[in-house]
Amino acid sequence: MQQLDGRKRVVIETVKPEIECGRFPIKRVVGDSIVVAARVFADGHDMVSAGLIYSPPACDDWIQVKLSATGNDWWQGNFTVDHLGVYRYSVRGWVDRFKTWRRDTRKKLDAGQDVSVDLITGGQLLVGATERAHGSDLIRLRAFHAMLDGSGVTLDEKLELALGAELARLMEDSPDITLSTRYEKVLEVIVDRKRAVFGAWYEMFPRSASPDPHRTGTLADVEARLPYVAGMGFDVLYLPPIHPIGRAYRKGKNNAAAARPNDAGSPWAIGSVEGGHQSIHPDLGTLDDFRRLVERSHDYGVEIAIDIAFQCSPDHPWVKEHPQWFRHRPDGTIQYAENPPKKYQDIYPIDFETADWENLWKALHGVLRFWLDQGVRIFRVDNPHTKAFPFWEWVIREVKRECPSVIFLAEAFTRPAVMYRLAKLGFTQSYTYFAWKRWRWELAEYARELAQTEAIEYFRPNFWPNTPDILTDQLQTGSRAMYQIRLILAATLSSSYGIYGPVFELMEHEPLRPASEEYLDSEKYQVRHWDLNSPDSLAPLITRVNQIRRENPALHSNWRLQVHETDNDALLCYSKRDAKGRNTILVVVNLDPGRRQWGFIHLDMAALGLRWSQEYQAHDLLTGARYGWLGARNYVELDPGARVPAHIFRIE
Amino acid sequence: MQQLDGRKRVVIETVKPEIECGRFPIKRVVGDSIVVAARVFADGHDMVSAGLIYSPPACDDWIQVKLSATGNDWWQGNFTVDHLGVYRYSVRGWVDRFKTWRRDTRKKLDAGQDVSVDLITGGQLLVGATERAHGSDLIRLRAFHAMLDGSGVTLDEKLELALGAELARLMEDSPDITLSTRYEKVLEVIVDRKRAVFGAWYEMFPRSASPDPHRTGTLADVEARLPYVAGMGFDVLYLPPIHPIGRAYRKGKNNAAAARPNDAGSPWAIGSVEGGHQSIHPDLGTLDDFRRLVERSHDYGVEIAIDIAFQCSPDHPWVKEHPQWFRHRPDGTIQYAENPPKKYQDIYPIDFETADWENLWKALHGVLRFWLDQGVRIFRVDNPHTKAFPFWEWVIREVKRECPSVIFLAEAFTRPAVMYRLAKLGFTQSYTYFAWKRWRWELAEYARELAQTEAIEYFRPNFWPNTPDILTDQLQTGSRAMYQIRLILAATLSSSYGIYGPVFELMEHEPLRPASEEYLDSEKYQVRHWDLNSPDSLAPLITRVNQIRRENPALHSNWRLQVHETDNDALLCYSKRDAKGRNTILVVVNLDPGRRQWGFIHLDMAALGLRWSQEYQAHDLLTGARYGWLGARNYVELDPGARVPAHIFRIE
Repeated sequence: MQQLDGRKRVVIETVKPEIECGRFPIKRVVGDSIVVAARVFADGHDMVSAGLIYSPPACDDWIQVKLSATGNDWWQGNFTVDHLGVYRYSVRGWVDRFKTWRRDTRKKLDAGQDVSVDLITGGQLLVGATERAHGSDLIRLRAFHAMLDGSGVTLDEKLELALGAELARLMEDSPDITLSTRYEKVLEVIVDRKRAVFGAWYEMFPRSASPDPHRTGTLADVEARLPYVAGMGFDVLYLPPIHPIGRAYRKGKNNAAAARPNDAGSPWAIGSVEGGHQSIHPDLGTLDDFRRLVERSHDYGVEIAIDIAFQCSPDHPWVKEHPQWFRHRPDGTIQYAENPPKKYQDIYPIDFETADWENLWKALHGVLRFWLDQGVRIFRVDNPHTKAFPFWEWVIREVKRECPSVIFLAEAFTRPAVMYRLAKLGFTQSYTYFAWKRWRWELAEYARELAQTEAIEYFRPNFWPNTPDILTDQLQTGSRAMYQIRLILAATLSSSYGIYGPVFELMEHEPLRPASEEYLDSEKYQVRHWDLNSPDSLAPLITRVNQIRRENPALHSNWRLQVHETDNDALLCYSKRDAKGRNTILVVVNLDPGRRQWGFIHLDMAALGLRWSQEYQAHDLLTGARYGWLGARNYVELDPGARVPAHIFRIE
Repeated sequence: MQQLDGRKRVVIETVKPEIECGRFPIKRVVGDSIVVAARVFADGHDMVSAGLIYSPPACDDWIQVKLSATGNDWWQGNFTVDHLGVYRYSVRGWVDRFKTWRRDTRKKLDAGQDVSVDLITGGQLLVGATERAHGSDLIRLRAFHAMLDGSGVTLDEKLELALGAELARLMEDSPDITLSTRYEKVLEVIVDRKRAVFGAWYEMFPRSASPDPHRTGTLADVEARLPYVAGMGFDVLYLPPIHPIGRAYRKGKNNAAAARPNDAGSPWAIGSVEGGHQSIHPDLGTLDDFRRLVERSHDYGVEIAIDIAFQCSPDHPWVKEHPQWFRHRPDGTIQYAENPPKKYQDIYPIDFETADWENLWKALHGVLRFWLDQGVRIFRVDNPHTKAFPFWEWVIREVKRECPSVIFLAEAFTRPAVMYRLAKLGFTQSYTYFAWKRWRWELAEYARELAQTEAIEYFRPNFWPNTPDILTDQLQTGSRAMYQIRLILAATLSSSYGIYGPVFELMEHEPLRPASEEYLDSEKYQVRHWDLNSPDSLAPLITRVNQIRRENPALHSNWRLQVHETDNDALLCYSKRDAKGRNTILVVVNLDPGRRQWGFIHLDMAALGLRWSQEYQAHDLLTGARYGWLGARNYVELDPGARVPAHIFRIE
């Protein structure tokens, strides 16, 4: 009974958004408006008022904005986030004496009752407000007080003043919150830069970047490739690990158990006598080369993302320096990675249950700080789901506290609960199941899960049709239409997407074995050379799609993604709108790469910002064609043989 | 970093049941089994194990039972509550080294790999378990250790032992939980006695209990009425306030603004010179009479419930003794109750914002303790939604800590959020919107809301077809069939129900005014006399329905309430089963009191514990008729003109 003030009568319940009881923050980007709703009510018949309170990063003060009643004890309001970092928000509610008094006094007046005593009560409430108001509000409140107290004013005039709109506004702006209730939790929003939700990624192996087929590619070759990557409209250039590669148990071409003398090895077998996670592979160049690459990339509007793979080759310096960070077997050897009966003897996983975990965490944090110092702001994290969750939660918070513009992409292809947990605990973006979603029902279901459930508050998808590990059976067909379909789906369903090139644009599609998702002659194990000037390259389409993405704000987020009905299972139809409702994109994709498909689409007109039977124009941004449409039901026909098996319409 | 042990790798999420992030307890009754589910997982490929831990009332120890994996990282288990009071529960999870070792070693063996080092690792895990095991388990573990260490045992034999079922069981029972994670919240269950969910209530005004129409009824008359009430099968006899009634502004008959000299006044205008909330109205008798009534009621298997109305007449002793507990107007008068333009000058509401709130709370708590001392264990609380929520949460917890068998019924007819909040903060049972739910769709929807949403965890409905304040328009018709319909709906949809009698069984139905829900010549304002021997009385049907309720465990809770489809909107069909699946009741009600209605019902056979095309018998417990049915689709015909317009079938 001591801790509590029993006079606080207002209840605040069910604040939204709130992830796992406030255990985790929601996520937004700079400029976003956050709509907050809550149930706020009190006992009895008194009226309540409620405010949304929020506090910008590194600010101790709370700013209060009004919440409005939306019915059935629900209240709603919003605030805009303008700074990077962590905002806090909560809700406050209080019994509003003046609002109650105003309602009741009006009712008594309407019933012809005497309200002279009520008028005195109202005056007392007004005097209370003068003790809280400032500036012009205070002057006006004093003026009201003088008039209500004055002898030269009739009772009717006083009542008109006391019940008028101006005094109501003044009283609302200086509320008596001494007995207000604050929601028991303080909730958080992580505010990122826009790249956290909108960006086109391009992955390439630096060692395959050489224009000369007789030598290995270098960071300088990557630099020379920047015009090509930027020219296609990519925002992020992601490089697999650029560190020295171990020699012990090195894998050969096509993942052969034993390497031949000149085999390059897997970049994910990190560490050798030449260094570990803070070193550059000597064949690729120097740290200076890397820094120059980072700087030059800015000139092209491209950001360099690097790979963070916290695992070691047996030759990694840490194996000798910190043997306690690895698990030892009873025979004294260090436990290599395995997924029985498979063995990965070229990789030592880190033991996150080591008693020396604090020093381990500091060292791993040190790796990230090192690359921050080299100008990197985007980390693609390899298999984060095989490292301890508490480590990620801590290290991401530490890094973003120092540098809130950093973006972490989680490369976890695992069970739903694990993928969502990684997103909740701090990963900015996540790889997804998109590559394996092929049919209309599963694409539509997944789009709804990501865009229309609570997941959108914390899980930001990055859609990849392929990666060095994922050559899906759809792409193994080598069908040009299928590559086009997967590109357009990825780039328009998700505001963040990426491709692994030049493999993708050149439609490299031979698998290592039938039913394997591994590439034949995979760049993971050998150096490759690519003919970027191939006439078959998808680069022109990619360029156009990325241009459409940039020009249309509707495609810059997933918040207003809506799937529409079609009467042909081979046609997937969906739309996106920007927050202001000024830009609407409608996409129709023929999911069948082999046949012409046609049918009617049934549009949710409200989701497009259109009236039920409105005339409008569907302007195909891929072909330039314009269709005059009326109402919700429209005919569509898409032939994979002729040009692109999809429409990307702007609704005009 | 200091507070945390970074080595704890297991995550526990989404524990169910959990109300508002564990802010409120769930509710059960003695003997219930509580099913708990949670998502439990770790990073990587190690296997996890999980346990449900719980702690009985006033116990500091935790008991652990196993959780079983049910797929997609979900785990489930259950425990049974045998004691009154507050149980606590939570979930624990850990990386299970032995289970992981067993899985991986089997796989290696199957692939023909050498596992000699693995066998040593397994032996180390076994040694660890001997440090945690006791009794026969310890002896067996030591025996296993000796055999695995022994030289006379072949490798194959050792492997068979190490990977066998017995060692798996032994290791499972002595798990290594040093790095286990405990769910961050401790959740609570309030365990009540069975009356909290199952009971038939009868409300009557003691002053109308006199068999002699020339005098006012007394508590002794109520005592004489016990055979009648118990004979109909009621479990609880609830009496409106029995305290002295104020004289100031006393209301006359039919709520007349001014009472005539002999008018009895409203029992809810509590307090006069004769005393307040801890006194008995002198016309009703003495405290000894009350105590005797409580004692005699036990002989009839009936419990006395009293009314707790925390409000005062202007004559209540507290008005002089504690004027600070009431709100004062600027003219010095105390603020009477009002709902402008209506005035209730005979009632002073208590001001829960008084600075003296702590003494106020103690005094109100004192009222409850006083009646506990007189043997009362059930309180029907009048308008709890007009008193502060923090007070109720505190006082109910205080009372139930001293006496966990106490039942509080909340008489709040207000907005959904408020009704649910009162239930969450501690009220054992709640009045509902049942009286106003008439049509099939709204009865079915309400049944689903109460029985098939999270509400069932904390909101226990008590269905009343009428109360002294509620004479619905349906009952105003005076239709005998309508009274039968409302009785059967209340008694079979909800395991707790009640009627306000003898008004109900005598079908008193004249309203004060058309469209008013007030009774003409209401007992709230005057003494009435009733002819219980009327040949039209519904008492025989009520008696039969209460007997059916007692004999059929399916009707003792709402947990397995299922609404079934019918092809006639006038027919409502639903079923209930007991927890063990041994008793199944199927109810069909003709909601139309004026016409014969017929049609097909489409039964959810699984909800009835039946196979799809099974033959079974529907035994009508009201008429004794038996119908041989086959499968889900069956014909029903109900004529309100002939006997009862409903079937209460037992499925046999």
